[in-house]
Amino acid sequence: MESYQSQEEYYTALQKRAGLPEGFRCSTTSLHFYPLEKPVEEPLPMNMSLILADKATASFGAVFTKNSFPGAPVIIGKKRCTRHYIRGICVNNKISNVCTPDGVGDAERFCEALGKSLGIAGNLLIPASTGIIGWRLPLEEMIAAVPNLRKTLSRESLYPVSRAIMTTDSFPKVRSEPVGDGRITATAKGAGMIEPNMATLLVFILTDVRVEREILRKTLSGIVEETFNRISVDGDQSTSDTVIMISSNKKPYPGDHVFQKALFNVCGTLAEDIVRNGEGTSHVIRVMVKGIADKSVSIGIGKAVINSPLVKTAVFGNDANVGRIIGAIGDFLGTNGVNIDIKDLVIKVGGINIFSGMSFRIDVKKEKRLKRYMKEAQLDTWTKGYPSHNRAVDIELRFGKQIPVFTVTGSDLSYDYVRENADYRT
Amino acid sequence: MESYQSQEEYYTALQKRAGLPEGFRCSTTSLHFYPLEKPVEEPLPMNMSLILADKATASFGAVFTKNSFPGAPVIIGKKRCTRHYIRGICVNNKISNVCTPDGVGDAERFCEALGKSLGIAGNLLIPASTGIIGWRLPLEEMIAAVPNLRKTLSRESLYPVSRAIMTTDSFPKVRSEPVGDGRITATAKGAGMIEPNMATLLVFILTDVRVEREILRKTLSGIVEETFNRISVDGDQSTSDTVIMISSNKKPYPGDHVFQKALFNVCGTLAEDIVRNGEGTSHVIRVMVKGIADKSVSIGIGKAVINSPLVKTAVFGNDANVGRIIGAIGDFLGTNGVNIDIKDLVIKVGGINIFSGMSFRIDVKKEKRLKRYMKEAQLDTWTKGYPSHNRAVDIELRFGKQIPVFTVTGSDLSYDYVRENADYRT
Repeated sequence: MESYQSQEEYYTALQKRAGLPEGFRCSTTSLHFYPLEKPVEEPLPMNMSLILADKATASFGAVFTKNSFPGAPVIIGKKRCTRHYIRGICVNNKISNVCTPDGVGDAERFCEALGKSLGIAGNLLIPASTGIIGWRLPLEEMIAAVPNLRKTLSRESLYPVSRAIMTTDSFPKVRSEPVGDGRITATAKGAGMIEPNMATLLVFILTDVRVEREILRKTLSGIVEETFNRISVDGDQSTSDTVIMISSNKKPYPGDHVFQKALFNVCGTLAEDIVRNGEGTSHVIRVMVKGIADKSVSIGIGKAVINSPLVKTAVFGNDANVGRIIGAIGDFLGTNGVNIDIKDLVIKVGGINIFSGMSFRIDVKKEKRLKRYMKEAQLDTWTKGYPSHNRAVDIELRFGKQIPVFTVTGSDLSYDYVRENADYRT
Repeated sequence: MESYQSQEEYYTALQKRAGLPEGFRCSTTSLHFYPLEKPVEEPLPMNMSLILADKATASFGAVFTKNSFPGAPVIIGKKRCTRHYIRGICVNNKISNVCTPDGVGDAERFCEALGKSLGIAGNLLIPASTGIIGWRLPLEEMIAAVPNLRKTLSRESLYPVSRAIMTTDSFPKVRSEPVGDGRITATAKGAGMIEPNMATLLVFILTDVRVEREILRKTLSGIVEETFNRISVDGDQSTSDTVIMISSNKKPYPGDHVFQKALFNVCGTLAEDIVRNGEGTSHVIRVMVKGIADKSVSIGIGKAVINSPLVKTAVFGNDANVGRIIGAIGDFLGTNGVNIDIKDLVIKVGGINIFSGMSFRIDVKKEKRLKRYMKEAQLDTWTKGYPSHNRAVDIELRFGKQIPVFTVTGSDLSYDYVRENADYRT
């Protein structure tokens, strides 16, 4: 069980995790710009980041949002994935570069300018952007910042990047695992779709173990499906969600099993970090669906519970309002015409049996225990600026059998969520 | 444009609408009870209502929730619909009678006791319940209230029933229309799924025009699909949602067109009343999807926008945060693999063009106009206890052509929604 007493303690732990795998350098810089056509009087700050492999590598892959209005960086990223090699990733926060006139052109021109300064082709860089929708990139100011990005490249740590890519995230997120003789180090940003039009899930995963491109891509997409695709802060999928993985191929491959396990751990913990840092999250909620063979039904039930505003608000209030769980499950099954056996359904919250034999099993004592359990899982990340623990509210839905098990993770719904999303620009 | 300056003015308007069609009587009464197994020290109040046709009628129909955990009254109501005749509806608030031991038996025993007092068979009555999930009905107290229900039957008005069936509704809801020589009068309750485990949409529609059972049922289910099934306060479908329509067959049938139009108006306005009274609703949001032939895609897009927490919170904040609309549409299309032409999409909010040619069309002046438009549509129903106007925030999504048009209606997401749903029992 992780726990942190102060922001300093959390940041220290993060720095320990953030060592770069061999064969990579990274840098960050910042700039100020005036957005076009907007009633903003102060210039706005933007952070730029660069992650660079020492040599061009074919061992890379990416998973992108399925949103039908993808941002320009997603359009370019998909193209880059069809190429043989890349060298790195360049990231800006503050503007997401979605649905603007010639957004793709802007991003390509920046890649070219950065590539030229590094002595490489611009199309060896994958761009990534997060922030406001509708504004154009401040290309002039970004290009002026290129020399800084080049000059400050360092082998030390991914930690500065984890801070520079934040938008409304209340704390930076880094996870790493040893793998064979090498390591996997990854960082992510994303705190619900916000800031102010929508934020984005950006994940950058680096490793130095030699892994064939096809294996890397297959493993990555499988693990993204089981981790980042199983979390939900507000049910919205942004126009820019992107996960990119790059290997520098410096160390021997430790075998599929070891590699998969390490990557799963990195992505799983990072995915939970994102929920924990969700907009106004005061509880992480984990729903385990057991005993349904059909994966899409299991995930559907889990997401129905996790995305139900009524379940979310009850957990926020530490309220043992368990009828809402049944309501959400029944709504999903009935609306989608899913015909599974519900007679043997057993529901446990924090290990406490609250429903079986098609009837609620609640009494005064159990309600008090549930309330205490939820209170202990409460977070105040949003005000504190760091996660004080990694406890969650565990909801188990067992349909007869114990296996298979599918888990989805989400957040509660708090005043702070509404405040952040309603008041940003007003 | 309706508008009301005070609660009194609204209540007066309601009483004018609430005249009963010929051939019906109704009554209400109240009782107090101590719930089992719960840490409640004060006895709780419950309202009972009875709507009774003078004679048994075959002209009735109902539409029930698709939730896979239906309440006992829904189970019984479905059975009643297979019978030849009914006489009326008995309703209680405060307890929904869902997933309790022998809930069906409890409801049947109450129908029998009430029927006996009225001199009719218990199975001529359809029970309806709304309120807390998990508690049993206080059968003894309910049966003791039966004589009161019988004695106070009156031909005057549906208004007392509209008040008695409320749970957390902040105002009663009645709509009526003349139809041929007769009328349709209807009442509804429902304010999001609350109170405290979940509330319910209950709708009771009475008419005196002679309408064949098959025509009544077909017309009702078609119109429910276009009205009550196109609204969404929090995306949750309760375990008890029920719409019941009964005709006393006293007046001549005015023909399909007149009947359909009147019923559509009653259901349409009542459905909007429910959204307007949604938990903490401070804006009604109407999304019109134009130019997509596939109905399920149109409705899916509309509901994706209406149910997006980001769109909802932006509207709550009167924030012209229009990028979120694109995010929600793109998420729905991409996630569901829907392949429609989005190149010609034009988005208007309050008639103001904000997106066309795959690019945002926003400037400082437009943002101010949008803000003013949203402010004018703001409601403070929740604190005032009556709806001061019936304006809405209209979002038009035109995919090339002007037709067909599908409309869905929803609410914004406010602090009050979170407060109501988190704090009820704590």
